Amino acid sequence: MGTMGTKTLDRDLRSERNGTFGPYVTNGKHDEIAGPRQRPVVTMRGVPLERRDTVRIGFAGIGSRGLYLLRDLLAVDGAAILAVCDGSAEAAERARQRVVEEGQPEPAVYSGEDAFLELCRRDDLDLIYVATPWDQHTPMAVTAMEHGKHVAVEVPAATTLDECWQLVDTSERTRRHCILLENCCYGYNELLVLSMVQAGRFGQITHGEAAYIHDLRKELMADSGGGYWRRQTHLSQNGNLYSTHGLGPVARYMDIHRGDRFTLLVSMSSREASLSAYRDRTTGEGDPKRRERYICGDMNTTLLRTELGRTVVLQHDVVTPRPYDRVNLIAGTQGIFRDYPARIFLDGTDGTDGTDGIERDLNAHAEWESLDAYKETYEHPLWRRVGDLARKLGGHGGMDFLMSYRLIECFREGIAPDIDVYDAAAWSAPGPLSELSVERGSMPVTFPDFTRGHWE
Amino acid sequence: MGTMGTKTLDRDLRSERNGTFGPYVTNGKHDEIAGPRQRPVVTMRGVPLERRDTVRIGFAGIGSRGLYLLRDLLAVDGAAILAVCDGSAEAAERARQRVVEEGQPEPAVYSGEDAFLELCRRDDLDLIYVATPWDQHTPMAVTAMEHGKHVAVEVPAATTLDECWQLVDTSERTRRHCILLENCCYGYNELLVLSMVQAGRFGQITHGEAAYIHDLRKELMADSGGGYWRRQTHLSQNGNLYSTHGLGPVARYMDIHRGDRFTLLVSMSSREASLSAYRDRTTGEGDPKRRERYICGDMNTTLLRTELGRTVVLQHDVVTPRPYDRVNLIAGTQGIFRDYPARIFLDGTDGTDGTDGIERDLNAHAEWESLDAYKETYEHPLWRRVGDLARKLGGHGGMDFLMSYRLIECFREGIAPDIDVYDAAAWSAPGPLSELSVERGSMPVTFPDFTRGHWE
Repeated sequence: MGTMGTKTLDRDLRSERNGTFGPYVTNGKHDEIAGPRQRPVVTMRGVPLERRDTVRIGFAGIGSRGLYLLRDLLAVDGAAILAVCDGSAEAAERARQRVVEEGQPEPAVYSGEDAFLELCRRDDLDLIYVATPWDQHTPMAVTAMEHGKHVAVEVPAATTLDECWQLVDTSERTRRHCILLENCCYGYNELLVLSMVQAGRFGQITHGEAAYIHDLRKELMADSGGGYWRRQTHLSQNGNLYSTHGLGPVARYMDIHRGDRFTLLVSMSSREASLSAYRDRTTGEGDPKRRERYICGDMNTTLLRTELGRTVVLQHDVVTPRPYDRVNLIAGTQGIFRDYPARIFLDGTDGTDGTDGIERDLNAHAEWESLDAYKETYEHPLWRRVGDLARKLGGHGGMDFLMSYRLIECFREGIAPDIDVYDAAAWSAPGPLSELSVERGSMPVTFPDFTRGHWE
Repeated sequence: MGTMGTKTLDRDLRSERNGTFGPYVTNGKHDEIAGPRQRPVVTMRGVPLERRDTVRIGFAGIGSRGLYLLRDLLAVDGAAILAVCDGSAEAAERARQRVVEEGQPEPAVYSGEDAFLELCRRDDLDLIYVATPWDQHTPMAVTAMEHGKHVAVEVPAATTLDECWQLVDTSERTRRHCILLENCCYGYNELLVLSMVQAGRFGQITHGEAAYIHDLRKELMADSGGGYWRRQTHLSQNGNLYSTHGLGPVARYMDIHRGDRFTLLVSMSSREASLSAYRDRTTGEGDPKRRERYICGDMNTTLLRTELGRTVVLQHDVVTPRPYDRVNLIAGTQGIFRDYPARIFLDGTDGTDGTDGIERDLNAHAEWESLDAYKETYEHPLWRRVGDLARKLGGHGGMDFLMSYRLIECFREGIAPDIDVYDAAAWSAPGPLSELSVERGSMPVTFPDFTRGHWE
C-alpha cells in the first residue's frame, strides 16, 4: 500500500487512476485534498472516554428511527437527555414529551435552521446522538466534534470517501470520539458468536459473509420521509447503499483494526428490475415517480480482502421480494456459523472430521447444529447482565437498548468505545468504494487504511 | 466485447494484458494460438443428434466415479455398452464384470497405454463416456470427436482456457457433440425450479448463487487415487477448482447460451489455512505430504455478470469443516429460491408485498416457504416419468441416472443434447478465469463467448 500513489478518490477525483498495473488507489496519506491536515496526528484507537457516572446527552434527529433510539436510550441508567433537537418543531416537541414521559427532567428543545448548532454550543454535553438522514451524518458529526462533544452517529456514518476521512481527521484533531450506532453488533447471536470466535472455537478465521437483504419496496415508494430520501439514492448511486449492518459484526469477528484490516474491494451489481417493476405495478400513470430512473442494481455483491488474507462477501438488496437476511456468516479452520436461521457446525462434533468420497448419499453429509447448545457457555456477558431488560424493550430484538447501554457503560467505566471512528469509516466506506468499482466495470479498489497504520 | 483486443490468455500468455483501461481480454477470435482454426465455423448450438433407438457406447475411465456412472448408465433402456476401457487392466475387468452382471452382452475390453485410442478407432460406437481424472478430460474428448464419436465427459470438461477452446473448435469442426456430464442439472430441486423459472414464477431473473462447498479434507489427504490427484491442484492453482456442479443449474435458470451469456468475471480467494492445518493434525512428521505447500485459498468467491446484467456469486471451498452446500439460489423480480435446505419465497404469497418500515419486529419479516406446495404443479416431467427408478438406483439421489437417461432419450428422439460443448466450456472456464483474476489481484476478466455470437 502507498507505493502506487497517494490519490484519494472521492466523487470529484474519480476519473483519476494510477497509471501502472494494479487496483485503483484510494488510500495514501490524503495529501492532495487535505494538505493542511498533514501535520502529525495521534490516533484515537483505544483512547478512553472520560469517566462519567452520568452521561449528559443531546439528541438530534427525531424521525421514526430517532424516536425509537431515544426511547431505548432513556431506559439506560446514567443516560441523561439534557436537550433534544430537530429541524421540525413538531418532531422536537415529540422528543421532549418522550423524555418527560420517561421521568427525566424537562430537556431543552431546539428546532429550526440553527437548531443543531445551538445544541452543539451548549457547554454541558458529553455526547451527542445523531439520527438524521444519511447525508447529514458526517456534517453533523464533524460539527459536534468541532464543538468538543463526542458523537454517536446512526449508520452509515459517511456516504463518500471524503466524508470518511473528514470523520477520521476531525476525531483525531479534536480528540473526540465518533461512535457508530451499529446496533447489529449487539444482537444476541452476533455477541454470542463473537465470544465463540474469541474463544477460538472456529479456529483461524478465513472467511465471512454479510448482507443487508431487506425488501423495502413499499417504504421506498413513500412520497416523503425516510422512504422518500432512501429512494433518492437509487436514482444516483449503483453499489452497496447500506453496508454497516452486515459488515459491522463480521468486522468484529475478524478483529478489523485490532489486528487486521480491509485492503481490497471489488464490486458487481446486477441490473435494476424489481423497484421499477414494483413502482409500475403500484402507482398510477400520472404519478411523478413514473418518471424516475433507478440506476441501483437489485443485488450488489462486494468482495473484500484483508491484510491477513481473509475474505468477506458483502451484499445489498432492498428490492427483491425475499425474506430478511443479514447472513452473518463466519468460517474458520474449525467450523462455521451462519444466521437466518442461526446454525453452526464445528469440526468433529458430528463424529466425523472428513468424509468418504463423492459417492456417498448426500444425506450422509455433515449436518448443521442448532446454536442452542452453545448458549450456556458462550452467551455474551452483556446479554447475561441486561438481556431481560433489552428483550422487554425490544427495539430490534433488544440490540438497540444494548448498544446504548454499552456506550453509556464505556463512559461509566472510562474505557474506549467498542466502535470508534476508524470502524465507522471502514464499515461505511464500502458504500462509495463499491460504487466506484461498479462504475469501473468491477475493477478492484484499494481499501484505505483509515487507522494510518494503527490496525495491528 | 472484442473491441479491446483479441488475445486469448492461457497459462503461457498470462503476462499479456491489453494496455488500455478495462478488464483483461480473454475473448476475441482465438487468432493468435489458433490460426489454423480460423476458417469459418458452423455452430453446434441446437444441432440434433442422429436418431438411434439403441445408443452404442464405449466407456472410458473406471475409477470410483466411473463405476457408479456405468452402473446407472446400464439401467437406461437403449444404452448398449459395447466396450470398456481403462489404463489399468484390473479396472477394465471390473467394468466388464459390471456390464455382464447387468445382463448386457460381453463388452470388448481395452487396457494399457493405447487403450483409449483403440476404443476410439472402433467403427461401431455412437458415443464415448469419459470418466477419467480432470486433466485427461479435454485430450480424451478431443480424441473421441476426432474419431467421429460424440463424447460425454465428466466435470470439469476443461481445466485451461485453451482446453475450453479446443473442445469448441473440435466439436464444430468434427460436427460431434461434446456433452458435459453435469449431473446436478438433473437434481429433483434443480429441475423443479427450472420449471418454475420457465413458467415465470420468479419474474425477471436478476441474480443467482452457486457453490461447491464440500469438506473433502479426508479424501484430499489420500496417497493415491482421486483424492491424491485432486490434492495436486491445491499445490498449483488458486481459484475455483470445481465450478460446474454449482454453476450448471444456475446457468440453466438464466438461459445462458439460450438468450444470455456470461460477459465478465472477477474472483477473490481467502488465504489457505484449513487443508494444511488438517494435514498437520493427521499426518506424522515424516509424511512426505508435510513438505507440500497448498496455495489454493480455503474459500474462493467468483462474481460473474451476464450480457443481460444478471449476476452470479460462485463459490468453491473443499477444506473448511462445514456442511455440504451447492447454494443453488435464483432470484428475480417476483421471488427467490434457495437450496440446502430447499426454501422459496414468492411475492405476495405471505399476504404482504412490502413491509412497513425499519422499526418492525424482525419476526414480522416475510418468511420462507417449503418447496413442497409447488411439487404437484412444477415437478419436472423427467422426474414424473422415471423418478421412481432414479430414486431406487440412487446415485446422488437419482440425478446420475436421470442425466444418462436424458442423454439416451435425446439420441432416441433425435434432438440436440441439453448440455452442449458451449455449456461445457462456459461452465468449466471459471476455473482458469478465476485463477487468472486471483493472480492479478482480483482484476476483472472478460468471459469468452464460446458460442461466437450464437447465444441469443
